[in-house]
Amino acid sequence: MVLLEFSMSPLGKGESVSKYVSRSLDIIDKSGVDYRLNPMGTVLEGEWDEVMAVVKKCYMRMRKDCNRVSCSIKIDYRKGPKGRLSSKVSSVESQLKRKLKV
Amino acid sequence: MVLLEFSMSPLGKGESVSKYVSRSLDIIDKSGVDYRLNPMGTVLEGEWDEVMAVVKKCYMRMRKDCNRVSCSIKIDYRKGPKGRLSSKVSSVESQLKRKLKV
Amino acid sequence: MVLLEFSMSPLGKGESVSKYVSRSLDIIDKSGVDYRLNPMGTVLEGEWDEVMAVVKKCYMRMRKDCNRVSCSIKIDYRKGPKGRLSSKVSSVESQLKRKLKV
Amino acid sequence: MVLLEFSMSPLGKGESVSKYVSRSLDIIDKSGVDYRLNPMGTVLEGEWDEVMAVVKKCYMRMRKDCNRVSCSIKIDYRKGPKGRLSSKVSSVESQLKRKLKV
Repeated sequence: MVLLEFSMSPLGKGESVSKYVSRSLDIIDKSGVDYRLNPMGTVLEGEWDEVMAVVKKCYMRMRKDCNRVSCSIKIDYRKGPKGRLSSKVSSVESQLKRKLKV
Repeated sequence: MVLLEFSMSPLGKGESVSKYVSRSLDIIDKSGVDYRLNPMGTVLEGEWDEVMAVVKKCYMRMRKDCNRVSCSIKIDYRKGPKGRLSSKVSSVESQLKRKLKV
Repeated sequence: MVLLEFSMSPLGKGESVSKYVSRSLDIIDKSGVDYRLNPMGTVLEGEWDEVMAVVKKCYMRMRKDCNRVSCSIKIDYRKGPKGRLSSKVSSVESQLKRKLKV
Repeated sequence: MVLLEFSMSPLGKGESVSKYVSRSLDIIDKSGVDYRLNPMGTVLEGEWDEVMAVVKKCYMRMRKDCNRVSCSIKIDYRKGPKGRLSSKVSSVESQLKRKLKV
């Protein structure tokens, strides 16, 4: 199963891009793919094609009205079942025997 | 103020690296720098030197017993006050007028 | 047109992963998609689907014998013609009026 | 020794940012640290403090006249001597027994 974190923003639309980020989050939230939003990106969990389809949908929407788009993606594939959206953090917490800021 | 997300792991220490990630989180959690842990990395907030010092400390610890270390860092500097660890997510939620998965 | 840089490596296959990187480069070189290899990754140029298909092919090959795979991808979409594999570097050189190390 | 690839650009300075990228490359080229420029970033080689000092210098220059700056950094530390700016690519070529596009 794949964990994929990505962030995407337009260049040339000013210093504040939250309008464009919100449109992507709307797509992600409605996609049916499980995710977690953080201050620097969104982490999706699913098979390669599922999660990449969400990223592409955000890209296709953004290029409609943006001439330049930057996107960074980080992928962690690991053989095995779903659930790492929660288990990666809790595994660190259980090793340290304390709660961390999430 | 800088938001810096990073993840760091050794190559050549097997498929499971949570022992090494936990050591980094111990350093981060004790650093005094504000942070949020997510399934793909940790987001720090502070001035450039503050947040980079934390990353370097994790690196110095890891290279003690790891011959190869991979690290990816993403930085978002924006002129202005602290607080974007929370405000970036809530700004998207208020634009969409609903809660998202965090 | 999209510029996409990526790097992909297995976790749990030891400290040296050049065997796996070479297999990816073999796929890339035979794909017909234009590219440039550098010490930290490979930059592809093409439409979104074209370049993503190459990345996926490398991923499918790697997961055949690797239980954990890390991949980082950076995308720079800009409306307009092909050719930025060369023109981005030469544009910087012409602004600085000197040759740089490439 | 560390290989560090980075790219840095302002948000809010329009769609074309080559003026700002050129200023960074001027700093890099004059730093004395060995590097290679590619279409998506610049790869530096040196000790952690050396290469990070170059990145910080580019950042300090950019924030002088840019209110928002994005930067992505990828680090590959490996115990051992310098020279991986050239040897990583040539190692792949010798495994594949042919020249690649660089």
